[in-house]
Amino acid sequence: MAKRHSVAQYEAGILAGNRSLLSQSISLVESELEADRKLANQLIEQVLPLTGNALRIGISGIPGVGKSTFINSFGQLLLSKGHKTAVLTVDPSSGKSRGSILADKTRMETLSHHPSAYVRPSPAGKNLGGISAKTRETMLLCEAAGFDRILVETVGVGQSETSVKDMVDVFLLLMITGTGDELQGIKRGIMEWADIFVINKADGANAPEAEKMKQVLQTILPLISPVGKEWDNPVKTCSALNGKGMVDLLESLDVLVEKMKDSGQFQQTRKIQQRQWLEDHISFLLLKKFNENSSVELEKQKAIEILNQEKANPIGLAEELVRRFFEINQ
Amino acid sequence: MAKRHSVAQYEAGILAGNRSLLSQSISLVESELEADRKLANQLIEQVLPLTGNALRIGISGIPGVGKSTFINSFGQLLLSKGHKTAVLTVDPSSGKSRGSILADKTRMETLSHHPSAYVRPSPAGKNLGGISAKTRETMLLCEAAGFDRILVETVGVGQSETSVKDMVDVFLLLMITGTGDELQGIKRGIMEWADIFVINKADGANAPEAEKMKQVLQTILPLISPVGKEWDNPVKTCSALNGKGMVDLLESLDVLVEKMKDSGQFQQTRKIQQRQWLEDHISFLLLKKFNENSSVELEKQKAIEILNQEKANPIGLAEELVRRFFEINQ
Repeated sequence: MAKRHSVAQYEAGILAGNRSLLSQSISLVESELEADRKLANQLIEQVLPLTGNALRIGISGIPGVGKSTFINSFGQLLLSKGHKTAVLTVDPSSGKSRGSILADKTRMETLSHHPSAYVRPSPAGKNLGGISAKTRETMLLCEAAGFDRILVETVGVGQSETSVKDMVDVFLLLMITGTGDELQGIKRGIMEWADIFVINKADGANAPEAEKMKQVLQTILPLISPVGKEWDNPVKTCSALNGKGMVDLLESLDVLVEKMKDSGQFQQTRKIQQRQWLEDHISFLLLKKFNENSSVELEKQKAIEILNQEKANPIGLAEELVRRFFEINQ
Repeated sequence: MAKRHSVAQYEAGILAGNRSLLSQSISLVESELEADRKLANQLIEQVLPLTGNALRIGISGIPGVGKSTFINSFGQLLLSKGHKTAVLTVDPSSGKSRGSILADKTRMETLSHHPSAYVRPSPAGKNLGGISAKTRETMLLCEAAGFDRILVETVGVGQSETSVKDMVDVFLLLMITGTGDELQGIKRGIMEWADIFVINKADGANAPEAEKMKQVLQTILPLISPVGKEWDNPVKTCSALNGKGMVDLLESLDVLVEKMKDSGQFQQTRKIQQRQWLEDHISFLLLKKFNENSSVELEKQKAIEILNQEKANPIGLAEELVRRFFEINQ
């Protein structure tokens, strides 16, 4: 990474709206080096009083749903309302090709060039726990820099939505109409977490299909909602391409957030998230320390081979590995 | 716990079908004492060649769905086909009243008194990771004792189904008809994991309703199945009370399992589960070691209070806690 500054320099840069220093401070947070980690913690402690004031919005949907185009359009709408908007991504998969990353950047180009917007892709790394920990810290730095809308995009599937759900205030699920079986794309796990359902690409010849899908969702979703939860989550259609429906969507979002704040649910969720964050990070750090130990790692690989080839007891193998780990750490 | 035996004594007892020694060896596995843990591991290593041959069946459903009555009836059917059947429960909640535990025992009475059946409730303890680890080990002991059908009942909600899914070969979701909105009870997370959907209480005046619900499910489930998965999971009605539909259900289960074995999916799932089990248990043991440290635990409670009362950085707090932990362990 670039030359290291002092905590005071990073802080001053962030508060002054210096993009370069914000980016460098995020790189600091993403760094695995002990010295960087220490600086990063000091920096976050320092800017904490300025954090927590943004609305944190999670955005998910299957590949092809138009996430980047949607964020580009939705982000511009937020900017037009005077909101400073940051876009962060959480992507544990290395499966994304160079080409598709480039295409994403192009789709968000308008947004990323705006003086009140900031787009930051997820850090490299295979470990989702690590990536989402760093995304949470990046969120705090962006809040300190005055961004009051943080869009967190999940690119991976399954687990990455869970971890994003644990760091945002509201969660949008993007969907598109399919070829007859419109609901194919909905991963049911996600449906339970989504606060707002957005059917994108409701334009041109596809508009009536999108409208039909909306009706179907409005009928089906309440039926399969969790026990004890009254269904009142908005289902909306929009076109990120021509902007239709975006204003209406934003209004629904604002109304929902107000309702969550009035009921105290908003504040309660944040408290639970803080505690969860602490617990997650403890687990993450313990496992990190474990996995960083190269001799233990080697033994773990051997253990996995044994498990694949014969009847073996994972419990016994795990206990032996952990015993060895603490032996070495003594 | 009762007087400790030697590993050889436990092993001989288990192989001889001695109920009392099987129960004692499960208590050994459940014990948190270092000495018991060591004996338990030796015992499991010893009996490993005899494990893995049972069909492991997960059973879940919301409270009131009739799980105990169903297991009592389904278990007896398995016994009548010559299967030795063990029933284990996974219940992380302490919310269950004495009364309802007693009622469960009564409902499974016929089963639990049968010479070829064995019913074991989940161990006490708040930690789901710990409970499910112990359930997995209990499963192995039952397999070594010659049980060839293991029913794992989940009593808790949410997380406990995930952990049971990670230890069984097939997963049955029990459901009942409601008051108009039959699908209310389905937690969507579970739907994705369920291999067979069973509408219970399809008897008396409720039979037509159950049949209608079956039709609805058969229409809706394929629509909301995960991307790339062809929907062919059975939806069945039955009455655990009068036994209607139970034979048909068992036949569907056997057909499904055969299909899974032919495609290799069955074997592949077991391999993944073994690896997952290793990883889970490493995390569990690391956290256990952390939480057992009373001075660290005290500091963690303080950290949570700080998080609840002011703007604080969970990352920094977690790092400090983990640093202290390894300091103390040196």
